[in-house]
Amino acid sequence: MQMNKTVLVLSGGMDSVTLLYRLIDFGHEIFPITFDYGQRHVKEIEAARNFCDKFGLPHKVVDVSSLRDVLGGSSLTDDIAVPDGHYAEESMRITVVPNRNLIMLSIAWGYATSIGAYNVATAVHAGDHFIYPDCRPEFIKSAEQTLRLAVEGMGDTPRILFTPYLNFSKHDIAEQGRALEVPYEDTWTCYKGGDIHCGLCGSCTERKEALNGFDPTEYAA
Amino acid sequence: MQMNKTVLVLSGGMDSVTLLYRLIDFGHEIFPITFDYGQRHVKEIEAARNFCDKFGLPHKVVDVSSLRDVLGGSSLTDDIAVPDGHYAEESMRITVVPNRNLIMLSIAWGYATSIGAYNVATAVHAGDHFIYPDCRPEFIKSAEQTLRLAVEGMGDTPRILFTPYLNFSKHDIAEQGRALEVPYEDTWTCYKGGDIHCGLCGSCTERKEALNGFDPTEYAA
Repeated sequence: MQMNKTVLVLSGGMDSVTLLYRLIDFGHEIFPITFDYGQRHVKEIEAARNFCDKFGLPHKVVDVSSLRDVLGGSSLTDDIAVPDGHYAEESMRITVVPNRNLIMLSIAWGYATSIGAYNVATAVHAGDHFIYPDCRPEFIKSAEQTLRLAVEGMGDTPRILFTPYLNFSKHDIAEQGRALEVPYEDTWTCYKGGDIHCGLCGSCTERKEALNGFDPTEYAA
Repeated sequence: MQMNKTVLVLSGGMDSVTLLYRLIDFGHEIFPITFDYGQRHVKEIEAARNFCDKFGLPHKVVDVSSLRDVLGGSSLTDDIAVPDGHYAEESMRITVVPNRNLIMLSIAWGYATSIGAYNVATAVHAGDHFIYPDCRPEFIKSAEQTLRLAVEGMGDTPRILFTPYLNFSKHDIAEQGRALEVPYEDTWTCYKGGDIHCGLCGSCTERKEALNGFDPTEYAA
């Protein structure tokens, strides 16, 4: 049993990249997996790939763009406008892909099972609780139990759904990342997929607040 | 809240088609969803599509063939030989796709959330318990709780993971289907994907036993 063998859900955003640096710091053997939801995320996937190249990690990119057809009206996957401004329950509900987190975790857990990894790590954090039910602690606890049962008896199966940021704010994550010298200029957050961060969408607004005081990002606005 | 609105995981095999007939019998409004794992399942998907056409149901086929790259060495998705003979723990472990059931259920649950369906129905049954951990009652119970939590608060979310065959044998399912006049000759079971059922693979062996006495299937052997 290799307790340091870990599949990391790596989006290329600041949270999961910070977790990548933390896992490297822990001495884990890391297998990053990135989910491709279609065009909107090209820049983020590029960022994820660059970090994997930098550390010589085997990178899996799973195309889940076919899920658009069944998961419905989210601006993260569809061609509808992304709302500007701060996250708030009503305006940002449009960015919710129903059950996205469990779909990603299930695939990551299957991957971990197939390669004999002990952990699946994900950077879900407290800032997401309000609008994303699948980022709440009670969901994560239940999901870990379900995931364990799903593969029980199939050999050395994964045991830990590792979520060290569950009770962190995005700013807490950024402060950890600062200590770990994470090059945040190489991470990507913006939902709009332009050449540089728009600085206006909900995601950029949160990024600015989290990195306040040491933000290396170039914003359009 | 429409308690008869149901997403059905429909493979095109005899179990899920029997459940389709049972749900029609119940008077449910049915939204079948089929998962495409690649070439091996073309005949099964065709069968699923034909049943949807027959009853005028909106059919979603989700291409998950990109998962092959991360879910590893299963003969259901890879180009390795499918073992013949009866299901038994060792010889059939090769057909296990790790965590396949939870991946399918998570996507089906997300679909149900996006269309406001109350139930997600799946034909998992007792015969699968031995080799597939994600077909056991304790897994299904845990999965239902996790799935509910995953979308809690997102409006009229799905509540029921409907698994009426959980304690049925495949023969029990076939007897129910016989009473419902399911045309089993139009379902597809064989793992080998030939023109007619091979009659030798683990799946065909189970089919023969289940339909023993009223089997309309043409087998190659």
